[in-house]
Amino acid sequence: MPLYDLNGKNKYYTLYCDIRGDILRGKLKSGERLPAKRELAKDLGVSVVTVQLAYEQLLAEGYVTSRERSGYFVESVLPQENIRTGQKERGFSSGKPPAPAGGRGRLQTEAEGSAEYTADFVKGATPAKLFPFSVWAKLTRAVLADCGEHLLERVPCDGDAELKAEIAAYLYRSRGVDADPRYVVIGAGAEYLYGVIVQLIGRDKLYAVENPGYATISGTYALNGARFAPVTVREEGVSMGELKKINADVLHISLSHQFPTGVITPAYSRSRLIEWALGADRYVIEDDYDSEFRLSGRPLQSLFSLCPERVIYMNTFSKTLAPSMRMGYMVLPPALYEKFLRLFSSSANVVPLFEQKTLAAMLKDGYFERHLSRLKKYYRGIRRLTLETLEKLFPGCEIYDTQGGPHLLAKLSDGNGGDINDAAERLGVRVKRLSDYLIAPSDGLQGYAVFNYSGVTEEQLTALSLKQHS
Amino acid sequence: MPLYDLNGKNKYYTLYCDIRGDILRGKLKSGERLPAKRELAKDLGVSVVTVQLAYEQLLAEGYVTSRERSGYFVESVLPQENIRTGQKERGFSSGKPPAPAGGRGRLQTEAEGSAEYTADFVKGATPAKLFPFSVWAKLTRAVLADCGEHLLERVPCDGDAELKAEIAAYLYRSRGVDADPRYVVIGAGAEYLYGVIVQLIGRDKLYAVENPGYATISGTYALNGARFAPVTVREEGVSMGELKKINADVLHISLSHQFPTGVITPAYSRSRLIEWALGADRYVIEDDYDSEFRLSGRPLQSLFSLCPERVIYMNTFSKTLAPSMRMGYMVLPPALYEKFLRLFSSSANVVPLFEQKTLAAMLKDGYFERHLSRLKKYYRGIRRLTLETLEKLFPGCEIYDTQGGPHLLAKLSDGNGGDINDAAERLGVRVKRLSDYLIAPSDGLQGYAVFNYSGVTEEQLTALSLKQHS
Repeated sequence: MPLYDLNGKNKYYTLYCDIRGDILRGKLKSGERLPAKRELAKDLGVSVVTVQLAYEQLLAEGYVTSRERSGYFVESVLPQENIRTGQKERGFSSGKPPAPAGGRGRLQTEAEGSAEYTADFVKGATPAKLFPFSVWAKLTRAVLADCGEHLLERVPCDGDAELKAEIAAYLYRSRGVDADPRYVVIGAGAEYLYGVIVQLIGRDKLYAVENPGYATISGTYALNGARFAPVTVREEGVSMGELKKINADVLHISLSHQFPTGVITPAYSRSRLIEWALGADRYVIEDDYDSEFRLSGRPLQSLFSLCPERVIYMNTFSKTLAPSMRMGYMVLPPALYEKFLRLFSSSANVVPLFEQKTLAAMLKDGYFERHLSRLKKYYRGIRRLTLETLEKLFPGCEIYDTQGGPHLLAKLSDGNGGDINDAAERLGVRVKRLSDYLIAPSDGLQGYAVFNYSGVTEEQLTALSLKQHS
Repeated sequence: MPLYDLNGKNKYYTLYCDIRGDILRGKLKSGERLPAKRELAKDLGVSVVTVQLAYEQLLAEGYVTSRERSGYFVESVLPQENIRTGQKERGFSSGKPPAPAGGRGRLQTEAEGSAEYTADFVKGATPAKLFPFSVWAKLTRAVLADCGEHLLERVPCDGDAELKAEIAAYLYRSRGVDADPRYVVIGAGAEYLYGVIVQLIGRDKLYAVENPGYATISGTYALNGARFAPVTVREEGVSMGELKKINADVLHISLSHQFPTGVITPAYSRSRLIEWALGADRYVIEDDYDSEFRLSGRPLQSLFSLCPERVIYMNTFSKTLAPSMRMGYMVLPPALYEKFLRLFSSSANVVPLFEQKTLAAMLKDGYFERHLSRLKKYYRGIRRLTLETLEKLFPGCEIYDTQGGPHLLAKLSDGNGGDINDAAERLGVRVKRLSDYLIAPSDGLQGYAVFNYSGVTEEQLTALSLKQHS
């Protein structure tokens, strides 16, 4: 039984998290008995009630069972254990299923299924433990105390002026983007902002989207009733030929680190994009998703900086802070900003002022950038481990990685001529083919798998690298 | 007359429900006289006041009419009995067609210029001082302490399960709406939800909107690329004839207290709406905006309760809590909820979990309803003062007020034959004509002004009533 460090408040919750972690990492094995409550309480210097609460939480969530007069025993929750008994991929649903703590609907969410894998290279969630929760809580309390009833005021349609200014200042510091704070518009996440863009530019326009790319982007255009068409992405960026051929009005693009290819649009392609946009009444949506995670060197120059009249710059905080932060922003060209005001001046902004003020404080006081440095340092470590693990499992496999964000491509050869799915299944890994991200048929992506390592942990990678030998 | 069993609390409401049931089931026929109040009270062993309240509720909802000295008579509310020709001439509609005032967009923003008026009867903002700020701050701190890092978790697309359950429970307690918590969807305010509805039902459908009505509603449909068409609202609700003639697929309606007319859709019109919706693959959006502010009697029965398969029930907290609270909800028919999950299951909810948990706590612990009572008490006072002031300034002016929310209609005659604008300018009052709220030309609303008294203060009304003498 490891020692748990229980400083701070919510001791029982910390203890619960630690024990749960040990169960999920396999440190506590199925069938193992948890220490007696009194004993553990004494060891840790906490009250018996604290231990009792932690055990009850584990019990409620199905991590342990309780046997009368004997104590608490670890349940079999790990996929590896199930694979050994020939019940691969059944995970939680084989054996005795634990009741999800407050489950919803019929849908299995991404989070639920994750525990089934040794490592999940699809999900891609920033580990919650890296979020500077205590800073955020402190700033939240400070905002509540400082702003008081001002927090109840209606937020102008484009967002809180203070946050707009802080975002503009941050963009300048971190990205060299010289955005006029006036033209910054705050919105409830990326998909919400895509919808607003359609309302600004028009749903009769044709939106070109990257192929392969995020299905959510094209899906959101479709949901908003706009026409969209795929354009092929290769090492040199989107195909200009296709873009001209389909006669698109708008291009939605991630130049700094395209998902899933990782392509960084080279400078000469950028110039051609500007030329294309200026050639007619066209717009480029520079979706700068993931750009903060460039792991080496300076951030890449933004297209927006080159042509602020024709480029909409946008990004969110879901990846850098937490997926629960439904907060994004865009910097609009002046003409579109004027239209935004005409359409929405009678509406209030959809993001609560409380969140806007807290984020403004995080940006102003440098907390956000310190958090980002820590996150990048963490991802550098995970990336290194991912590469080592891939090399170990698939010696000599080809890697395509521009270090622009927490995902890379690997051409797998498992030595048996098997395909990616076989290898993944054998290893208990969740991974997708590059071609799985195609939104329309396209050639030449065979053999590549996309490793999004933002959601995997050191422990998982260590467990994975040991698989070869088992 | 059947015997009604009136055990338990809310006797008058039970009695009202029972009689209403008998009317809807045809046990009490159109034209039939309800028993005298004293008589029924004696029979049932309840007070006369109880019967009186039940009868008044039935009267307000149009199930019965009252004839002086004769008693209460059952209205023809069943669809098959429905051939009514506007016999109700006591309302606000008569005369020639005024033209619509023009849409939104170019409009002066509501917030501007308020300080310039003695009293602003247009703006309509809940006074910030009435918001239970200290309660909210306390709950905010409690949520932060209790939920801790859980607040960072991704919220399922339809919202936090706890808030969904609390909203369903609140709807049942306050409105008698028996909504399955599963089908509650949380969103960032009314306009956001209108957009989602368009995505669910389709922008190729024709959305009928009330005329006169909120320009924001039709404007939001237009912004979302959906077709909309106005249908006339009069004392008996929307014109069924027009609704059928334009062949609408969806009707967006406020039944409990329409803005700006204040019309309460009577029971027979409700039945016809259900019949209309069931007649084809049609939906009614029951926008229950302002329904909490019914200043006398119980809330009116919801259309949703009558037909949960064809009615989307929706409301927000912007009016009851604060305009900065961008939080609304809708209860979807099961089929639309399934579609919602299909479309959005990969998206996170746009409202921060922090706000959702705080509101859930407000609902759970009864704070919200206590706040609402205080607010209603306050509005009763402001309404009385508004009426007194109007009577003083415009002796004998006609009032149309169904007491359903913080606005009423007054036909102004300032004694000089001048029109509303002249009177308003002379008095330093901001007020709009009923016809200013037309979204398409319509007949017979001359002379009426809309007094939204939710944003005026006692002091302002007192100052206004002194104006006459200056």
